[in-house]
Amino acid sequence: MDTVVIILAAGLGTRMKSALPKVLHPLAGTPMLNHLISACKPVFDRIVVVTGPDMPNVAASAAPHQVVVQHERHGTADAAMAAAALFGTGIVTIIYGDNPLLTSDTLAQLGRQLSAGTIGMSLLATRPTDPGTFGRIVGAAGFATRIVEYADASEQERTIDLCNAGGFTAHADDMLRWLKQIGNRNSKGEYYLTDIVKVANADARPVAVVEAPWDECRGVNSRAELAVAEAVIQARLRRAALDAGVTLIAPETVFLSADTMIAPDVTIEPHVVCGRGVSIASGAVIRAFSHLEGCTIGTGAIIGPYARIRPGSVVDEAAHVGNFVELKATHLGAGAKANHLTYLGDTTIGARSNIGAGTITCNYDGQSKHRTTVGSNVFVGSNVALVAPISVGDGAVIGAGSVITSEVEAGALAIGRARQINKPGGAARYKRAKDKS
Amino acid sequence: MDTVVIILAAGLGTRMKSALPKVLHPLAGTPMLNHLISACKPVFDRIVVVTGPDMPNVAASAAPHQVVVQHERHGTADAAMAAAALFGTGIVTIIYGDNPLLTSDTLAQLGRQLSAGTIGMSLLATRPTDPGTFGRIVGAAGFATRIVEYADASEQERTIDLCNAGGFTAHADDMLRWLKQIGNRNSKGEYYLTDIVKVANADARPVAVVEAPWDECRGVNSRAELAVAEAVIQARLRRAALDAGVTLIAPETVFLSADTMIAPDVTIEPHVVCGRGVSIASGAVIRAFSHLEGCTIGTGAIIGPYARIRPGSVVDEAAHVGNFVELKATHLGAGAKANHLTYLGDTTIGARSNIGAGTITCNYDGQSKHRTTVGSNVFVGSNVALVAPISVGDGAVIGAGSVITSEVEAGALAIGRARQINKPGGAARYKRAKDKS
Amino acid sequence: MDTVVIILAAGLGTRMKSALPKVLHPLAGTPMLNHLISACKPVFDRIVVVTGPDMPNVAASAAPHQVVVQHERHGTADAAMAAAALFGTGIVTIIYGDNPLLTSDTLAQLGRQLSAGTIGMSLLATRPTDPGTFGRIVGAAGFATRIVEYADASEQERTIDLCNAGGFTAHADDMLRWLKQIGNRNSKGEYYLTDIVKVANADARPVAVVEAPWDECRGVNSRAELAVAEAVIQARLRRAALDAGVTLIAPETVFLSADTMIAPDVTIEPHVVCGRGVSIASGAVIRAFSHLEGCTIGTGAIIGPYARIRPGSVVDEAAHVGNFVELKATHLGAGAKANHLTYLGDTTIGARSNIGAGTITCNYDGQSKHRTTVGSNVFVGSNVALVAPISVGDGAVIGAGSVITSEVEAGALAIGRARQINKPGGAARYKRAKDKS
Repeated sequence: MDTVVIILAAGLGTRMKSALPKVLHPLAGTPMLNHLISACKPVFDRIVVVTGPDMPNVAASAAPHQVVVQHERHGTADAAMAAAALFGTGIVTIIYGDNPLLTSDTLAQLGRQLSAGTIGMSLLATRPTDPGTFGRIVGAAGFATRIVEYADASEQERTIDLCNAGGFTAHADDMLRWLKQIGNRNSKGEYYLTDIVKVANADARPVAVVEAPWDECRGVNSRAELAVAEAVIQARLRRAALDAGVTLIAPETVFLSADTMIAPDVTIEPHVVCGRGVSIASGAVIRAFSHLEGCTIGTGAIIGPYARIRPGSVVDEAAHVGNFVELKATHLGAGAKANHLTYLGDTTIGARSNIGAGTITCNYDGQSKHRTTVGSNVFVGSNVALVAPISVGDGAVIGAGSVITSEVEAGALAIGRARQINKPGGAARYKRAKDKS
Repeated sequence: MDTVVIILAAGLGTRMKSALPKVLHPLAGTPMLNHLISACKPVFDRIVVVTGPDMPNVAASAAPHQVVVQHERHGTADAAMAAAALFGTGIVTIIYGDNPLLTSDTLAQLGRQLSAGTIGMSLLATRPTDPGTFGRIVGAAGFATRIVEYADASEQERTIDLCNAGGFTAHADDMLRWLKQIGNRNSKGEYYLTDIVKVANADARPVAVVEAPWDECRGVNSRAELAVAEAVIQARLRRAALDAGVTLIAPETVFLSADTMIAPDVTIEPHVVCGRGVSIASGAVIRAFSHLEGCTIGTGAIIGPYARIRPGSVVDEAAHVGNFVELKATHLGAGAKANHLTYLGDTTIGARSNIGAGTITCNYDGQSKHRTTVGSNVFVGSNVALVAPISVGDGAVIGAGSVITSEVEAGALAIGRARQINKPGGAARYKRAKDKS
Repeated sequence: MDTVVIILAAGLGTRMKSALPKVLHPLAGTPMLNHLISACKPVFDRIVVVTGPDMPNVAASAAPHQVVVQHERHGTADAAMAAAALFGTGIVTIIYGDNPLLTSDTLAQLGRQLSAGTIGMSLLATRPTDPGTFGRIVGAAGFATRIVEYADASEQERTIDLCNAGGFTAHADDMLRWLKQIGNRNSKGEYYLTDIVKVANADARPVAVVEAPWDECRGVNSRAELAVAEAVIQARLRRAALDAGVTLIAPETVFLSADTMIAPDVTIEPHVVCGRGVSIASGAVIRAFSHLEGCTIGTGAIIGPYARIRPGSVVDEAAHVGNFVELKATHLGAGAKANHLTYLGDTTIGARSNIGAGTITCNYDGQSKHRTTVGSNVFVGSNVALVAPISVGDGAVIGAGSVITSEVEAGALAIGRARQINKPGGAARYKRAKDKS
């Protein structure tokens, strides 16, 4: 049977105090909305996102999924109705776009309830650490008769700790009929999706409660809640890495992305950040204060401390990238070393080559970027500038302090530096001159 | 009516194991005493600090506020008496200098109690997570009859969880009279300020209890408690930033100062430290592992990762400061970039100029510091040394690897590097020579 | 009386998903097994480690202590029996190698119980935060009648929160006799050491329970538990530093080693890592993002931010090591400064010398490492390369941007850089050329 999820993402999110629509604020480097879409993908045949009229970038993030626009904001039930033409003939699930922590498992459970007997709807619920002003779920024995907003709840109802978590599943025809029955006789004159529970009950159709852990159901309405959601996601990512056999010496100081791939027996020291697109092979050690994005780290490689590996970089087996070294779109061959104060941009370094401290590839001439190619077994002395485009052949040696502007052939020694002049007693003259200046 | 606060800061703080007086230990970069003074300023007409006889730097930190010296340490009531001549004719509040987390709101509440009826004194109280050996407040229904030290407390009294938090407010004449009635018949022969509660009660004047949250009343007697107080302050600063619309991806890894100013829609990545005097405009991104002090960051600027911005620096709109880059007293113009392994000290860089990787301003000649001035639209190649004082005109180009010692005029191309020499087959000779060495 | 501890370290630790034996996984830079050995040393006359047949590196870590091999894994009682020949004639304690958090105090308490009356054995117990599936201790009033595995426990027994923590002490002859009486009639056909409690009781010898805090008794069976154990150890190390009078602004972001020595009135800023062999003298400040290993930091020295001090380095009194500076096997004299983007390897710097920004010692020629010796009061200009072996005499001055390849005598001025050439209007030609390229 056709299954569709309607993600309500039209809200303005004013409490975020941001020019960016709420659902586009990132968690672990990915917009909230896309976390939710990722959780929905394995569960639903179709995904529909309801945006506001002024949110082209939400639609862009939702692509290639269907997007409908709620032109005027008349409440969550009205937002859901904006997608009515796309409900289809199967099962419809409606969720909120600012619930980025929901998992596929939980979403799948919502649908599963419907197969049982006369159940008309399933409703996502949770027990928050502090129920605060969340809407309470009135009912008993796993069924909800209605959701009561905190403001309207009696003292007795406020003691309920089972709260609305914002997930509603029903057959398309039921959902559509019930949505149409929701009224707007309330102080704001809005159509509230939460009223659908009462409506379904009035239709003599039980509403089954699916309870999920609070950490899955935390919504994001403010930057503080965004930070908490980030912490929940980071905790999941760290836990998955640990379970896979990765040593995180201080997990709470390591930040991963949803797509970070780390093999068993990798060690990650404290204070490491992995942006998107990072893959690390077995036995590699990522030392403290390293920052990786869009890169592949080979078996047994040693990275950092203080290494920054930028997108497009590949570090081969047993290579070393040391402190205050930046790699950008650079391939460092097996066993090669770049250990100190070095910038390698748009560069290929062959196996076992040694890049001296302070080496800089001059890859940008003010107009465009150029490549540097260094062969294998090359020894680049310290404080060398390699002015790209440039190539250095296998086994070549480059003298310390050289500026290399033209090709160095395999086996050649290249040097480009001024001769040293010593002026005996000159220090005193220098200091006197500086005193006067 | 004249209001004065007496801050008792004469204690030696031996548990700190420090040569520095306890109240001068910093929190968020500012001495504890000054946190307390900042909280007192909006509440009291006058601030008086009581120091010990051997603490000139405490007096310096207290300036311009009045300082009196307790010449011999005979207890807290004796310390308060040292300021008796400054009580004035209005209302006196006595607090402890090692309570740096007190807020203006709480301090103001102490005074407010006195206006009601026959109340003679108000007393600050709190309920610690673990009441431990704190003095217990004996009394009922919001009034204290006495403070009992833990050592002297009965089993019954030890079950009280309302504890003395070290704040006493009374009319000046009452306060003075009661302080004089405090005796020193105890094991240490000291005059304890806490006895004033019993004395006031004996005078038939009720003592009203003002209860404040434990996180406001934590005292600092050890480095462990100092670290906890720092955590409380950092949590406050982070929360304020989040509430103002700042994204802190991992708030617990970001350290702010009391004066840090961050606009909405700024993003601060994990592992960032802001020292004093930092201001960051909207849309700026402070990437991981960055360290900022005394600087102004413009709209949409990108800082880091691993950027260190030191005092006196200004980064204009949309400028970039990249990894392993240090700015000291440097103005980086709009859209300018210094992205890799660079030191800019005492430097002005014009708009849209590009500073190549490994560029170093040689601003210090061993005697004094000199300025570097770079115009707009300048292209400084990689690994360039700019020997100050020096100026580079608009639109100039400087070749990679150059040492620039004299002025470069606008539109000029400057180069200062040795010519490269290639010795075919020289690598083998080089290696043989090194083998022998 | 002779006391011996048998550490069972033959387990495969498959849940670690590691090629490294479980007990060799490090905590605070030291293998778990060695933490346990350190705790055992002050308590026992002899230490015996039982390893598996395929664990030569465990034996190496255990050296110089005795090692016996359990050739086939038939359970923990069988592992203990592998050491039977080394029980001696005194008191035997058996513990698990994956309990790295046990303290000497607790281990000593186990032995102390035996001196009292007819007690036959003492048993280590703890109350975990979540007793989960731990073996429960059945008994009363401080004595155990048996340990029941969770799987075999009745509902009633599962409510017991006192759990087996893996420590057994008895006289050698008792221990040996009881071990032999343990059978293997269970689903796995293994000999379980925990059965010894029942056996001792059957022998009419009471088993006394020694209860230790859960944080001491956490075992390590997975990377997640390894991370928790690391957190426990780091918390102990940080607390000890704070108690000794060290300021840790954010203790939770500072990582220490078991052998880190820090004097009172040292300040350590957030985000600092101390590897093994670090000693820091009074008044030193370790600024944020610094990384220290195997080094000695002198009184009042200032390190960082972003300083990396590697093994063999000594920083003398009041010296400064600044941002993006690496020291390796380097002695920095009193009051000397290396503040920006510098690599000093195998170097001696005299007192009060100033090392300019971007200075690189070229200590490696591709074959071997060479020393650099710089005298006192030397001024090394910025962006200088010092090609080792090299020496620079007292009071010398080296011009910015120089490559120094031969000795500089005391008082000399040395310079080695190309002359600058300005080409008026050349920038435009340069840009046109680059446009075409």
